[in-house]
Amino acid sequence: MPPLALTLGDPAGIGPELALSAWLGRGGADPLPPFFLVADPDFIERLANRLNRLVPVAEVDPETAAEVFPRALPVVPLPSGAKVSAEPGAPDSANAGAVIESITAAVAFVAAKRASAVVTNPIAKFVLTRAGFAHPGHTEFLAALSVPPGRTPPRPVMMIWSADLAVVPVTIHVPLKDVPDLLTQELVEETARIVARDLRDRFGLPEPRLVLAGLNPHAGEAGTIGHEDRDVLAPAVARLRAAGLDIRGPLPADTLFHARARATYDVALAPTHDQALIPIKTIAFDDGVNVTLGLPFVRTSPDHGTAFDIAGTGVARPDSLIAALRLAERLAATEAARTAPGPGGAEIIPFSIYAGRPRASGAKHFDAEDEL
Amino acid sequence: MPPLALTLGDPAGIGPELALSAWLGRGGADPLPPFFLVADPDFIERLANRLNRLVPVAEVDPETAAEVFPRALPVVPLPSGAKVSAEPGAPDSANAGAVIESITAAVAFVAAKRASAVVTNPIAKFVLTRAGFAHPGHTEFLAALSVPPGRTPPRPVMMIWSADLAVVPVTIHVPLKDVPDLLTQELVEETARIVARDLRDRFGLPEPRLVLAGLNPHAGEAGTIGHEDRDVLAPAVARLRAAGLDIRGPLPADTLFHARARATYDVALAPTHDQALIPIKTIAFDDGVNVTLGLPFVRTSPDHGTAFDIAGTGVARPDSLIAALRLAERLAATEAARTAPGPGGAEIIPFSIYAGRPRASGAKHFDAEDEL
Repeated sequence: MPPLALTLGDPAGIGPELALSAWLGRGGADPLPPFFLVADPDFIERLANRLNRLVPVAEVDPETAAEVFPRALPVVPLPSGAKVSAEPGAPDSANAGAVIESITAAVAFVAAKRASAVVTNPIAKFVLTRAGFAHPGHTEFLAALSVPPGRTPPRPVMMIWSADLAVVPVTIHVPLKDVPDLLTQELVEETARIVARDLRDRFGLPEPRLVLAGLNPHAGEAGTIGHEDRDVLAPAVARLRAAGLDIRGPLPADTLFHARARATYDVALAPTHDQALIPIKTIAFDDGVNVTLGLPFVRTSPDHGTAFDIAGTGVARPDSLIAALRLAERLAATEAARTAPGPGGAEIIPFSIYAGRPRASGAKHFDAEDEL
Repeated sequence: MPPLALTLGDPAGIGPELALSAWLGRGGADPLPPFFLVADPDFIERLANRLNRLVPVAEVDPETAAEVFPRALPVVPLPSGAKVSAEPGAPDSANAGAVIESITAAVAFVAAKRASAVVTNPIAKFVLTRAGFAHPGHTEFLAALSVPPGRTPPRPVMMIWSADLAVVPVTIHVPLKDVPDLLTQELVEETARIVARDLRDRFGLPEPRLVLAGLNPHAGEAGTIGHEDRDVLAPAVARLRAAGLDIRGPLPADTLFHARARATYDVALAPTHDQALIPIKTIAFDDGVNVTLGLPFVRTSPDHGTAFDIAGTGVARPDSLIAALRLAERLAATEAARTAPGPGGAEIIPFSIYAGRPRASGAKHFDAEDEL
């Protein structure tokens, strides 16, 4: 399998230094999958020196990256040869072109099968916007790059994954007051179908188990606390179940995320950003991974931002980037096995997305009654 | 100090059997504070026999309960002498009178200083409503009982407490779409003042540290995702700070509940039910305690419902009731010390509400930037 393509991210943020940290931790009992950074090799070398990291940098092309990986951090130059100069913590729109080119090149590498997946370092949208970037966000830009110009991009779905829990917010960065109107039956169904498909095809779960959290407290208590759970979410779940999906809900959000509840499903969808993000950041703050479902290629990302306030200080933790690299490799390998040529393709080795999670067999159904 | 008064709760729910379980675990290295149940002693005795629990039941008055407690479960009869007959799992409005009388009597005992605090077992509102109960809920009923008839009751504030986290939902059982309108500056300020006062007076924290979660994703990102965080919550926090309260916010809700963040505050207020309840039920599902702040007496309650579906099966866990009894005793003791007669009252022994929680000294401020 080709190596992973890791983007530059904002060069004034913590992304590039985390790439150095991750590479330094590449060996050991559970070695990291080979990856290459798409960046200006001189900038990376200067950064390593500045931070006193003993990281030899090797300018390579994707085909030689894996061979180099054990002894040097492989860096594939930006196709234009663009150079980067950045002060940690001081974002500069002069680097916007290089940031965008790194993303574009990484997608092109994966499309050409010269990389197996895209792992993206964090960007700061305001830096790119000032330079004319017009996409709503990083993920939407990746979706646009995944189809020929002028074609409608696929709808990307954000999942935050950790060893203990995976969540999908059905709405994301929108005002809370707009959520009840945005939360249509169609949106819920489309989201659930994309999630179920990618859990099958990339996570190797033949029958993924989904749950949907309610919008209102206690999932609306049969329509007595807001009508949306009864009138929008319940019918969406009924239609999805009729179509063969293993999905339950709407269930009270507050009782859905403790250990015994988590053992009853593979992924939880939740109507609001906070309903989904609170539980995973509470129990997996350092090593959550942002996975984009619905794209024609595997894309993961650490679940943090540029952290300009600590960039260059050496305190940023690479846990989430390391988890993002490992997950990308597993997802790409599962998809590669599924789509391998020959009768039935290669053997798929399914893996639980919840390595180490206790699995309840016949776990007792938890219900709202306990919580009234 | 007088013993704790524990109410009957719904006799067909798990409350009475948990009282038996809690009493059976009264001894050991960390003995339970003495409590008495306000109930029909014959019903409790029959229940113990039915469940094969070796629990001697002693009919007592509050003054003899503590002395009896080591060798029998003290039960103070209902003042009317009402009898109870109930089938586990089969709620019956015929018992509504006894359920209500147990609550009324417990409050009367604490008002007369014959009990030090009220611990309530779960009720099912629909059972009482059918019998004519007109209060919006258990807590509002307690507030009404705390003042003479015809007087305006104090505003009760629900806090869910555990050793690892304490949370206060600013709105509770209301449709999510109504939250933005209900969330006024006045409501936030009044809630915060009640919380701060009770943390000082009952939890013994001289300068309680509060945080307020934002309403919108990422606390609105400076007004770009919904206006309420900037226009309602931020001014409320500014006024509270000007009045001397140690409160920060609005902060992004998703990054507020992991271990390092929790170490920076004593209680988190959150605009919605789920923002507050999700994190505490995720990390402390079995031993969260519902504490009512703002009442003239201490009231705690296990953080679960009647659980009719498992009543009588013996699987219900008493963890939350035990935690509720222990907390009630600590709060009552702190308040008693504070209000003791004599110059300056008795010595107050402050305790952290977070026994066992790691405390960060000078914990780094976490901010939204990491999460964009």
